[in-house]
Amino acid sequence: MQLTIILDMMGADKGAEELSLGLRQFLSRNPGSYHFIAVGKQEELHSIKDIAEIVDARDIVPMEAGARDVLRMKDSSMMKAIDLYQERQADAIISCGGTGAYLSAATLKLKLIPGVERAALIVPMPNAIGKITNVLDIGASNENTAEHLVQFAEMGRIFNQAVYGNKEPRVYVLANGTEDKKGSPESKRALEILKERNFPGLQGNIEGRESLSGIADVIVTDGFTGNVYLKTTEGVFKVMSNEIKKIFKRNLFSMIGYLFASKGVKAMRHRWDYRSTGGSMLLGLNGVVVKAHGSSDAVAFSYAIEVGKKLAEAKIVETLTKGFEHENTAAVPQGTKASTQTD
Amino acid sequence: MQLTIILDMMGADKGAEELSLGLRQFLSRNPGSYHFIAVGKQEELHSIKDIAEIVDARDIVPMEAGARDVLRMKDSSMMKAIDLYQERQADAIISCGGTGAYLSAATLKLKLIPGVERAALIVPMPNAIGKITNVLDIGASNENTAEHLVQFAEMGRIFNQAVYGNKEPRVYVLANGTEDKKGSPESKRALEILKERNFPGLQGNIEGRESLSGIADVIVTDGFTGNVYLKTTEGVFKVMSNEIKKIFKRNLFSMIGYLFASKGVKAMRHRWDYRSTGGSMLLGLNGVVVKAHGSSDAVAFSYAIEVGKKLAEAKIVETLTKGFEHENTAAVPQGTKASTQTD
Repeated sequence: MQLTIILDMMGADKGAEELSLGLRQFLSRNPGSYHFIAVGKQEELHSIKDIAEIVDARDIVPMEAGARDVLRMKDSSMMKAIDLYQERQADAIISCGGTGAYLSAATLKLKLIPGVERAALIVPMPNAIGKITNVLDIGASNENTAEHLVQFAEMGRIFNQAVYGNKEPRVYVLANGTEDKKGSPESKRALEILKERNFPGLQGNIEGRESLSGIADVIVTDGFTGNVYLKTTEGVFKVMSNEIKKIFKRNLFSMIGYLFASKGVKAMRHRWDYRSTGGSMLLGLNGVVVKAHGSSDAVAFSYAIEVGKKLAEAKIVETLTKGFEHENTAAVPQGTKASTQTD
Repeated sequence: MQLTIILDMMGADKGAEELSLGLRQFLSRNPGSYHFIAVGKQEELHSIKDIAEIVDARDIVPMEAGARDVLRMKDSSMMKAIDLYQERQADAIISCGGTGAYLSAATLKLKLIPGVERAALIVPMPNAIGKITNVLDIGASNENTAEHLVQFAEMGRIFNQAVYGNKEPRVYVLANGTEDKKGSPESKRALEILKERNFPGLQGNIEGRESLSGIADVIVTDGFTGNVYLKTTEGVFKVMSNEIKKIFKRNLFSMIGYLFASKGVKAMRHRWDYRSTGGSMLLGLNGVVVKAHGSSDAVAFSYAIEVGKKLAEAKIVETLTKGFEHENTAAVPQGTKASTQTD
C-alpha cells in the first residue's frame, strides 16, 4: 500500500529548506513508495520537486495564532494541508506549526472520533529501560475534567497497544504522590472512575520521579500539567547534557577521558534527544495528525514523518474508532465539538 | 546568638540512627553553639546525648497521616516537636515526616503569618549557572487559586531576597508557554493580577524547559503542578546519572576514561543532588518549618538542618511578617485558617 503523506513545509523556525533535508533523511532511512504532498511557498520547495507533489500556499500561520486566526487564513500552508488531507484521503499529515492553531483547525476540519470528547497530544518518551512511555495530554488543552482523563487512559491504552505492541499496557495517572488519595481534584476523580470500571492494566498513581523508570507504558495527565512535565524533562536533559560537556572540558586529562567515552556519550545523547522521537500525535481525531516541534531541524522532521508513517501503518484511527464505539451508546456528549484550546 | 533547633528524629525511612549521623555531619560543617532538642524514642537517640537534649516521644506519625490523625497523636515525635517549638520559642524545626500531617499540624499550632492565606513549600533548585532558583508551591496544597499564586510570588520574592541576597529577584509564573495568554486558568489570572500591581521583578511566564537555565530567581506555581515539576526534575536527574554510569562501564577504554573524568562526574552529582539542598521550607507560618525528604539519609538531613539554621539567621519570619503587613489592611481574608491539605 502506498501511503499519502501531507507535509506542511512552513511555520518551522528553521525554514522550508531544513525540512526538505528532513524529508530526504526520512527516505534514506525508510525506502519505499510514498506519495508526498508538500505544501508551502513553491519557490522554497524546488529542491524536493523530484520526490514530492508541490502545492503552493502563500501564507504562514504565525506560531501564536489561535483557532479563529487560522480558519481565516485559507491560503496558509497549514489550512491547505489540512484541506488536502480530506480531499486526497491521505494517511498522515505533519506540521511544525503552532499547537493551538493546528489542533483547532484539525479538530474542526477532521472532527473528533465519535465518542471522543477531547483530543490529546500523546508523546513517546524514552525511558530508563530503553523502551517508550507514552504520556498524554501534553498540551492540547489548558485544563481537563476527570472524564477527559478517563478517555485519555482509553486512547493511550489503544495507542500503546497498536504502536508498541504491548498487550496489556500498564497505565498510570500522574500525581503528587502514589497513594490513591493524592492528586488534583480532577486526577483523583479520574482514578476513582478508572478503578470503578476495572480499567485494564491500571496501576494507580505515579510521581514524576518514577515516570521514566520504565514501570509505565502510558501516563495520563491534564494538558497543562503534561505540558509542564514534558518541557521540564527537556529542560533537565538539556542542563545535564551541558554538565556532561563541562566535565570533559575541565582539563587535559578529562579531555583524554572523552576520547574513551565519547561513543557512549553520543549514544546517550541520541537516545534521550527529543528530536529522535520526532513528534507527538493529536490523538482522537479522524486522521493521523502529527505535530513536530516548531524548532525542528532536519533530523527531528525526518522522525516526525516516521511517526506519521508508523501510525498510518498501525491503522490507529480505525482502531480508536472501534475502541470508542461503546462510548456512543453510553451517555457521553457526542465528540464533534471543537476543543477549547483556541487561544 | 545561640540558635535553638528542634529535630523530629522519627518518621524518616532510614531511621533515627541515620539522622543522628546527619546531625554530627551538620556540626562538623557548621561549628558553633546550638541548642538541639531531639524528639523521638529515647532508646534510639543514645548516640547524640552529648550534643542534644533528648525529649522522649513514643509514637511515629505515619507518612500518609492526615491533619486529624496527627492532631490526635499527642505523643508522636512530630506533635511534640511542634509543641516544643512554641514552648521553647525555638528558631527552627526540622522533620522528615509526611508533608500533609506536618503542614497541617504546624499551620494549626504555629498559625499563618497575618495576611497570608495559604502556606507554601518553597524549594531551592540548583540551576545551570551555579546559583539557586526558588520554586513554590511544590506540594503544600493540591490546588490553588490565582490569589494564592499572587501571594506565593510575594513570599518567594521576600524569601529569595532574605536568603540569597538578590535585591530584585526575577519572578516568573510556571506555564505551558511564555506568552501571557498561556497557562492554567489560575496561573493566567495570577499573571494578570501581578501585572496590574506592577509586581517588582516580574518577568512573565516561564516554561519547564527554561526553568533551570538560571534566568529565574523565583518560580511560582500551584502545589499540584509544582510537586509534579519537582519530582520530574528528580526523576530525570536520576535517569541521567545512571546513563552516565553506563557510559563509563561500556568497555575497558571507557573505564579508563572514567579515571580522567571521575572528579568532574562526582562534582556534578553533588551539585545536582537534591540531598545537598537539604529540604524545603513551609513558607508563610510563624516559624522556620523545614521539611526534609522522607527518604533522607545523613547527608540530606545534615543539609536540612543547615537550611533551618540559615533561615533562622536570615530572620525570614520577621521579614515576611513585615512584608505582609499591607495585606492586613487590604480586603483579604485573615490568614489564620488551616490549609485544605489535610488528606
